[in-house]
Amino acid sequence: MTQIDRTMSLVRRAVDERISQAIAERRDEWSDAGPAAAELLDAAADLLGGGKRMRAVLAAIALSATADSARREDVLSGRACAGLGAALELYQASALIHDDVIDGALTRRGLPAAHRRFATAHRGSHWLGDAEAHGRSAAILLGDLLLSAAGSELGAALAQCPQGTRAAGRAAFDAMAEEVALGQYLDVRTESLPLPDEGADHAAAGRAMEEAALAVVRRKSARYSVMHPLLIGALLGGLPPHGEGARRLAELGEATGIAFQLRDDELGVFGDPARTGKPAGDDLREGKRTVLLALAWQRCDAGGRAILRRVLANTRADPAEIAAAAAIIEECGARAAHEERIDEHAERARRALEALITAEAGLSRSATADLASVISLLTDRSA
Amino acid sequence: MTQIDRTMSLVRRAVDERISQAIAERRDEWSDAGPAAAELLDAAADLLGGGKRMRAVLAAIALSATADSARREDVLSGRACAGLGAALELYQASALIHDDVIDGALTRRGLPAAHRRFATAHRGSHWLGDAEAHGRSAAILLGDLLLSAAGSELGAALAQCPQGTRAAGRAAFDAMAEEVALGQYLDVRTESLPLPDEGADHAAAGRAMEEAALAVVRRKSARYSVMHPLLIGALLGGLPPHGEGARRLAELGEATGIAFQLRDDELGVFGDPARTGKPAGDDLREGKRTVLLALAWQRCDAGGRAILRRVLANTRADPAEIAAAAAIIEECGARAAHEERIDEHAERARRALEALITAEAGLSRSATADLASVISLLTDRSA
Repeated sequence: MTQIDRTMSLVRRAVDERISQAIAERRDEWSDAGPAAAELLDAAADLLGGGKRMRAVLAAIALSATADSARREDVLSGRACAGLGAALELYQASALIHDDVIDGALTRRGLPAAHRRFATAHRGSHWLGDAEAHGRSAAILLGDLLLSAAGSELGAALAQCPQGTRAAGRAAFDAMAEEVALGQYLDVRTESLPLPDEGADHAAAGRAMEEAALAVVRRKSARYSVMHPLLIGALLGGLPPHGEGARRLAELGEATGIAFQLRDDELGVFGDPARTGKPAGDDLREGKRTVLLALAWQRCDAGGRAILRRVLANTRADPAEIAAAAAIIEECGARAAHEERIDEHAERARRALEALITAEAGLSRSATADLASVISLLTDRSA
Repeated sequence: MTQIDRTMSLVRRAVDERISQAIAERRDEWSDAGPAAAELLDAAADLLGGGKRMRAVLAAIALSATADSARREDVLSGRACAGLGAALELYQASALIHDDVIDGALTRRGLPAAHRRFATAHRGSHWLGDAEAHGRSAAILLGDLLLSAAGSELGAALAQCPQGTRAAGRAAFDAMAEEVALGQYLDVRTESLPLPDEGADHAAAGRAMEEAALAVVRRKSARYSVMHPLLIGALLGGLPPHGEGARRLAELGEATGIAFQLRDDELGVFGDPARTGKPAGDDLREGKRTVLLALAWQRCDAGGRAILRRVLANTRADPAEIAAAAAIIEECGARAAHEERIDEHAERARRALEALITAEAGLSRSATADLASVISLLTDRSA
């Protein structure tokens, strides 16, 4: 087992256990609420049973980054890391549930999306009213519950951390959650904007599209998936909030997160559905304004743009149309340019790690090695 | 000006100012997010411009309850009370926005509900996709944003409170938000359940309905509207979390909150629309399973139940049908029995206040007087 595998396995086990306990505590506390509490908590447990715990692992690596080698594994699998990881996973579950309501998603982590689960239960019980509306309502409330439960779990984790680190850790967590809501709105809003019309300056329109896409990537995904978990963990591990170390770690996290999301966007068009678990072309059908799309818009001709227009936000685009759009994105050089962008961000992340080591932030050699592994894992992945 | 009026005026002014600052800080911080941030924050500012600040006032009375008379007004209008009040108001705005999506409400605080505001903007800008779905999505995200912003504001308030009180105050806030989500789900779920069929034991069915209605009142409304604000404020003011004082204050808060909500339910059927601001009978049309309805179910005959069945969850019930249902509720004695319930809870609240004084929790005379005023204001109101 490589070191990063060992780290991931320790963290995942502790976080899984803490999540199970959190759910069990609520079953106990709400036992007088009848089947309603069980319905919510069963749905939460099923959703939280899945997931790669990526944010929890990142946070634990950062929280334990200055622990000496004798203590490192105890910290990685200890109560502070487990609680913080559980808080991040509960928050992530909350965001996914609301995101799925917004996108009308069918499945999540191989299960029916929460709103569909509740709608199915409504129909199965022959309840009154509209099953779909009920499903959405229940999912909104389950998301709200998990967002607040994340706050409660964070509180339990903070109790395990030095007094002086708590306020900064909590503030970073709340700021993360605010930024994700803003980022999701940016995303929803951008998808609603009409495409530039054919008379426009396409290079300029494409660059504006690229900038808007990057703003969404940064706020909805990159910082949230990588930067914030690292920073929150590091703050709770005692890293000074405004020093050189925090600045470098933020840079590392944001760059890794952007590369990760761009790779994800590329897989959304060119990925093998058998490996990614999502149908090819769904991002195009949803009309997602990705950096990849923006690069294509700058490079292709009127014919190519017409092909792209035909599939974008067209939920009924057929596989041949999707394949034609993917071919355009490839042939105009957008895919290659996108690959370069990913490499640039990954390289920026590696340079930030070098700078972090030089900054003498007190990182252990194991933490440094884990961070290097994480950069590779998140930016090179093919599924 | 009476003392409670003076208290309310001091708190409201400080909280209003803090809310304005919180919004202004976010405008600044997100100035690079283009019009999207402004769209969210404008909607938040308009919604937060309304509201009676009831929870903020309760929290401030409790937070300042042991301050001596020389300091009391400074505490009431100081940064801890203002921050806690702002956090409670932001949280309330978040819950209202999600509640309005769930109920498909048209207006809130005299303005279009948030989801309708965003749908109207979508149509006005000729954006792509379904305006109603966009409105709902944006409102879900604005609610999420305000829920997390409430957490951030609470953090700022906690920084003004003694170190030793912070964790308990935060835990109580997070537990409140979790309980409200559960309570809202209980409410949504209860409205979906079929009414007992005509062959059932109506007294037993009515009692079960009453118990279910009280569980919703307690979790969705009573504790949240009154008990939790009082307790969170008191904890931050230094009240020991597990002592006699906290127990009595919780009792006072829960009983006042139940009486408040039962009065609200009564006004939902018998209130004067010109004074309550809501159309008479809307609770019946929505199929809300209130204690009042449960009391009627236990008392009326098959003919009466048939009239009730006709309007419950029937969004097209006409004014004559609504009037007939209201008449049944009155004539069978349910309204009078409901009035007795309200009096019992109000009386329980007053006894808890007596016990709180006897418990020597260190309450100032001004705090005692304000609490007595609050019990009257919240349980006697007619609009």
